[in-house]
Amino acid sequence: MNNTRYSSAGLIIRQREPKNLETPFDRIDSYLTPTALFYIRSHFPRPTLDRASYQLRIDGAVRHPFALNYEQLRNMPSETRVATLECAGNSRVFLVPQVQGAQWELGAAGNAEWTGVPLRALLERAGLADDACEIVLEGADRGAPKEEPRPPNPISYVWSLPRAKAIQPEVLIAYQMNGQDLPLDHGFPVRAIVPGHYGMASVKWLTRIEAVRDPFHGYWQTTDYAYWALTNGKPVRRALGEMKLKSEIARPRIYETLVPNRIYTVSGAAWAGESDVTEIQVSTDGGLAWAEAEFLDPVRRHAWRRWKFDWLTPKEPGQYTLLARAKDASGAFQPYDHDQAYGGYAINHCLSIEVFIEGSG
Amino acid sequence: MNNTRYSSAGLIIRQREPKNLETPFDRIDSYLTPTALFYIRSHFPRPTLDRASYQLRIDGAVRHPFALNYEQLRNMPSETRVATLECAGNSRVFLVPQVQGAQWELGAAGNAEWTGVPLRALLERAGLADDACEIVLEGADRGAPKEEPRPPNPISYVWSLPRAKAIQPEVLIAYQMNGQDLPLDHGFPVRAIVPGHYGMASVKWLTRIEAVRDPFHGYWQTTDYAYWALTNGKPVRRALGEMKLKSEIARPRIYETLVPNRIYTVSGAAWAGESDVTEIQVSTDGGLAWAEAEFLDPVRRHAWRRWKFDWLTPKEPGQYTLLARAKDASGAFQPYDHDQAYGGYAINHCLSIEVFIEGSG
Repeated sequence: MNNTRYSSAGLIIRQREPKNLETPFDRIDSYLTPTALFYIRSHFPRPTLDRASYQLRIDGAVRHPFALNYEQLRNMPSETRVATLECAGNSRVFLVPQVQGAQWELGAAGNAEWTGVPLRALLERAGLADDACEIVLEGADRGAPKEEPRPPNPISYVWSLPRAKAIQPEVLIAYQMNGQDLPLDHGFPVRAIVPGHYGMASVKWLTRIEAVRDPFHGYWQTTDYAYWALTNGKPVRRALGEMKLKSEIARPRIYETLVPNRIYTVSGAAWAGESDVTEIQVSTDGGLAWAEAEFLDPVRRHAWRRWKFDWLTPKEPGQYTLLARAKDASGAFQPYDHDQAYGGYAINHCLSIEVFIEGSG
Repeated sequence: MNNTRYSSAGLIIRQREPKNLETPFDRIDSYLTPTALFYIRSHFPRPTLDRASYQLRIDGAVRHPFALNYEQLRNMPSETRVATLECAGNSRVFLVPQVQGAQWELGAAGNAEWTGVPLRALLERAGLADDACEIVLEGADRGAPKEEPRPPNPISYVWSLPRAKAIQPEVLIAYQMNGQDLPLDHGFPVRAIVPGHYGMASVKWLTRIEAVRDPFHGYWQTTDYAYWALTNGKPVRRALGEMKLKSEIARPRIYETLVPNRIYTVSGAAWAGESDVTEIQVSTDGGLAWAEAEFLDPVRRHAWRRWKFDWLTPKEPGQYTLLARAKDASGAFQPYDHDQAYGGYAINHCLSIEVFIEGSG
């Protein structure tokens, strides 16, 4: 039953339609996640956009609204950046008791190279109004969302960025991923890439960029990708944004069985939102003792850093708990426990990876 | 980031607690599924049973109720049988729209060798009453189930077998799996193995065998693992039982990318309930044309047969849909569509495996 090695090993299905597919994270071997292995997160059935008729409108609180076709966008000066995307619900399966939603393990995260036009350049060309406070990104994907309270009619997938983030140079209106045209499931022909923010901000199948003068309180910002934050002691509904500091153990895989008394290279990747990952520590005894891991990749803002740690596995058979924790440039570590305020999102606590050391039997 | 090859590659987490873990089905390479790769289906937190104090009661509608300790059970004449277990909800992720429950892909199924005492021998020793109609198997796992209607208080996991099945020689009260003592998550120290029936019948952590004179209408039989069957035109609630004829494609994995114009060995496994799998056909064009696959394993009632099919992949890049269908001894094939009457269970239609043939790019 052997086969020659092929280019992709396939994705884990979390939901079949719309497609929500996860990278088998233990197969991550490269700095850039191969496109075919990159996780797919969809809210609605995939829209079919045609390159020939594609139009991107830039309007709202701007002095010169305009539209671009695909060729015009491709002919603008472009930039290529590496950025890690993580779905805000990544690692949800680690929450006990179980929380509703796709039961992502570790692989709703990936690191790719994105090519496109900085959103800033488009906003400058349109003449962004001084009093515009948010930039609303609208995708061509539409449907009826599920969570309450929900709007009475089908809606598009829409996400708004604070102006301060939208005008940063790293935010791209992208048409390439890893040097190739965007695949259909990754937003063909054009998507937003918002490095440092959870994936919900990187709107796929992008057709409209609208500047607004009042904060946009759409379904996704208020119902779905939102949480209760305390402001002066009162809970207020707030949209998710910046990714939290996080490290993940790619290998060994959870519940994997390892050989005793042998060097096993524990490996993983770590990322942060608007900070840098400066250190990784690994524990092989459930958090009692910690040792420093070695980085495989340099610091690059908004991109992950892979790391490794050579572990001499115990001689004693049994169950062992591995943990990894990242430190950011401010000196802060990941938390030990999930912040319940976020519900099924922003799961960045140290994730326990239980493994078995096999006996002689 | 390379590692020596270890004994297990880990399982996919569908639910972390209680543990519901899936075999990555594309890694199936052997007739017997290695124990560490065998799927785990749990309804409640794992009970801890002690071998020294373990007791198995056989009572109810019997002339001589008795109890056995672990050593006494081990000292009875034993049998070793190969049997495929499949969770009744296996392949649920293929249902569109999505149905509640663990989103199993293909790997809530496995084939192992089980060693234990035939249930029949225990029932004979107890003197089964002539009018006993079912045998109720009770596990030590307890909790509050979730689906409505649900009982007011926590319950044990309990399943009843029709008498006719319970007295078949293949039904084992097992203490070994693949030649080793049962692992904790697979029912240590003792479980039932009911070959030919969905996994819910193979009660783990078995502590009681009770013969009853009236059909047992417990939560699991009536609410959870049950469906509406038409009897004389009226829907009646019926418990699941015999596994349905099914084949699964293990490789390629869904959404895998393959090289054009090369031989790729499509492979998988097929099983049936109380029949034999006699033929496998494979389609690589979504069901227009079918070709016969080759079996790797002989016919053995209640055990799966692996199969393979050498596919010359197309030269043309694009998406292709693979299907496999099994035929049983009666000449019947698997259905093309899921029988909606079963809801999220008994999913045995031909499952579409979409793959991509890569371009030259």
